[in-house]
Amino acid sequence: MAHLHLLSPRGFRAAGVYAGIKSKHSPDVALLICDRLATAAAVFTTNPVFAAPIKIGREHIKSNQLRGVVVNAGNANACTGAQGDRDARRMCQIAASVAGCKPTQILPSSTGIIGHLLPMEKLERGIVEAGQYLGSSLEHANLFSDAILTTDTKRKTAATQIKIGRERLTVAGVCKGSGMIGPRMARGKSKARHATMLAYLTTDAKLSPATLNTLLQSAADASFNAVTVDDHTSTNDTAVLLASGHGPAVRSAREMKLFAAALDEVCQSLAYQIAADGEGASKVVAITVRRCKTVAIARAIARAIANSPLVKTAMHGNDPNWGRIVSGAGLADVPFDPDRCTLTLQGTRVFRAGRPLAFDAAKLSRALDADEVRVDLDCSSGSSEATIWTCDLSKGYIAINADYHT
Amino acid sequence: MAHLHLLSPRGFRAAGVYAGIKSKHSPDVALLICDRLATAAAVFTTNPVFAAPIKIGREHIKSNQLRGVVVNAGNANACTGAQGDRDARRMCQIAASVAGCKPTQILPSSTGIIGHLLPMEKLERGIVEAGQYLGSSLEHANLFSDAILTTDTKRKTAATQIKIGRERLTVAGVCKGSGMIGPRMARGKSKARHATMLAYLTTDAKLSPATLNTLLQSAADASFNAVTVDDHTSTNDTAVLLASGHGPAVRSAREMKLFAAALDEVCQSLAYQIAADGEGASKVVAITVRRCKTVAIARAIARAIANSPLVKTAMHGNDPNWGRIVSGAGLADVPFDPDRCTLTLQGTRVFRAGRPLAFDAAKLSRALDADEVRVDLDCSSGSSEATIWTCDLSKGYIAINADYHT
Repeated sequence: MAHLHLLSPRGFRAAGVYAGIKSKHSPDVALLICDRLATAAAVFTTNPVFAAPIKIGREHIKSNQLRGVVVNAGNANACTGAQGDRDARRMCQIAASVAGCKPTQILPSSTGIIGHLLPMEKLERGIVEAGQYLGSSLEHANLFSDAILTTDTKRKTAATQIKIGRERLTVAGVCKGSGMIGPRMARGKSKARHATMLAYLTTDAKLSPATLNTLLQSAADASFNAVTVDDHTSTNDTAVLLASGHGPAVRSAREMKLFAAALDEVCQSLAYQIAADGEGASKVVAITVRRCKTVAIARAIARAIANSPLVKTAMHGNDPNWGRIVSGAGLADVPFDPDRCTLTLQGTRVFRAGRPLAFDAAKLSRALDADEVRVDLDCSSGSSEATIWTCDLSKGYIAINADYHT
Repeated sequence: MAHLHLLSPRGFRAAGVYAGIKSKHSPDVALLICDRLATAAAVFTTNPVFAAPIKIGREHIKSNQLRGVVVNAGNANACTGAQGDRDARRMCQIAASVAGCKPTQILPSSTGIIGHLLPMEKLERGIVEAGQYLGSSLEHANLFSDAILTTDTKRKTAATQIKIGRERLTVAGVCKGSGMIGPRMARGKSKARHATMLAYLTTDAKLSPATLNTLLQSAADASFNAVTVDDHTSTNDTAVLLASGHGPAVRSAREMKLFAAALDEVCQSLAYQIAADGEGASKVVAITVRRCKTVAIARAIARAIANSPLVKTAMHGNDPNWGRIVSGAGLADVPFDPDRCTLTLQGTRVFRAGRPLAFDAAKLSRALDADEVRVDLDCSSGSSEATIWTCDLSKGYIAINADYHT
């Protein structure tokens, strides 16, 4: 399983090239193409301020069929008006001519600076060039992964395999995201808010569009939509899943469950990598809220804790500050009773039934000095749970975001 | 008007003494006593995790009559169980014996560390001592103001006078708050969330309890509840208003309006001082959202902008980053259409109808290097507006909150 990657599922080729859109010299235009019309599903930012590629992407995904995606980093094509829409359509047109399909069978993505028109000459040249370098090797997958990054410090990739009958199928993905992270993506424009994060998922499974839609939304809710770095939903968040159908069909309830678990695994691995690479982050904070009446309540409480700057700075300082966590839980606009709660911090119970417990603060502080901190809040009022991943808040985050200039 | 202070309204005396509860040597126990039964109103934190003094205060304010308040800093008496409730009642009992009234006619407040029982011996001695030093001078007002502070770097005080007929009446107040700030206080437990802030307001006006309740909630909504430093609602937020009735009665609609304006002025001045003294803050950011369908929508949008770490770090870096502000506006779960918006930053229009405008970024950046930055977002979809005050997010905030240990 060690060498699985974005292009391991049968039917996909990709490329990433440098077109001069990013200020630093690294790939910034990427293509992912399927050799046939793939069944496709996508979720997008729910911020009412959304970029041109989101608008065009929503149109193109309606058929639930795509031949591929075209991505650029370095410019978000957001707040760019009618010209921005035309540019996003043009990206699809060029990519379609490379793939030999209709422009509406390509989904466009952009990430980077807001409010500037795309440098179309460079971009068009880049897309055409990428079309000449398409391939299915690990190197091609890596070039695609690198081309979608912006402030990320690391490539983010995940993949897994399952067996349906005697046949193997692969689920794989790559993503980007480091700041402006707090995605809540959905198929429509309604619902919630949150991050710039982009995720591209491939599989060779054969699935119906309806199933794909349902599974992607569910996987996104428990992964990308469960990550927050700064709770600021981007204008450009997108996660798209392409199923080439070259592999086995996923039909029975058992098969569906198996496939859903594989998709969840890939998405959660990618989401975790976003939290770990959060701007200025020194650790992942995994917040699990258990035994709530509903998953929505558990998620709201976990998210309220995750978004408190007081909790995030305490985690940065290795401070077992249970008071900030418990009062942070109270910030969610959902029922919450501290008198029923047990809070466990990195394996140590620190609070139960409205009162702190005795614990060795110095020892626990040392335990918090780790790559991952686990916050576990048991609400003893139901049987639903949810996990939200975030990171600590450091001077590094301030430096990155106060010094960055429009 | 220069020498007006908390004890300028007729009928009030106060004191602040050092009882050894705070770690640093400065006053930490305070009394404010009215010479007669004052008409009183109070609003409290809406966090479901609330401290013992909040529970007792809610009981005592039910009659809308108080003789005074007793406050300690250095220990919040939060997450302290049944013993905490007994201690809060005991505070009232001692203060009542000083004032010569019933314990239920005293409102208690505490602020400081969470999860520790109050050091009752020190506190009781402090309250008795404070009772011996009660007075009405500016010095007494200052000692009271200082005794309620915790991480604040400055005393916070405001007062104003109006004329009803031929008679003058005074409205005055003091407050504390620097971190864990984002109050949303209300009379009940319901509604919203947010900060530790404490505010004590005095007036010699004669007013009905019903009017006082309405005016205090309205003034709090447009002042304390409109400040956010870190959007983390404290367990202890309290604002209380005592009306001694020694001055003129406020009866007619015109008089009511006059009094409401005076109360708003005092509360808004205090709220502004909290934002200016926010932990690590170098400037106040005043965010006004105009021409919305309702005040609630305007407030939600302004608050979403104010709470974005990306906006707050941009303000710290003097970066005219309109993209973060406009996408931040989209984070409020209310209708928002960027295509109808005009954004003005420190007097310069930077965005209109979905697109950025041309502006001199270097010049605007210099203008943002000020004690106050004004963000003005015109939504051109109604006639309601709201202002939220916040501060920038700096490395100082991280240092204060990552290094503080429970």
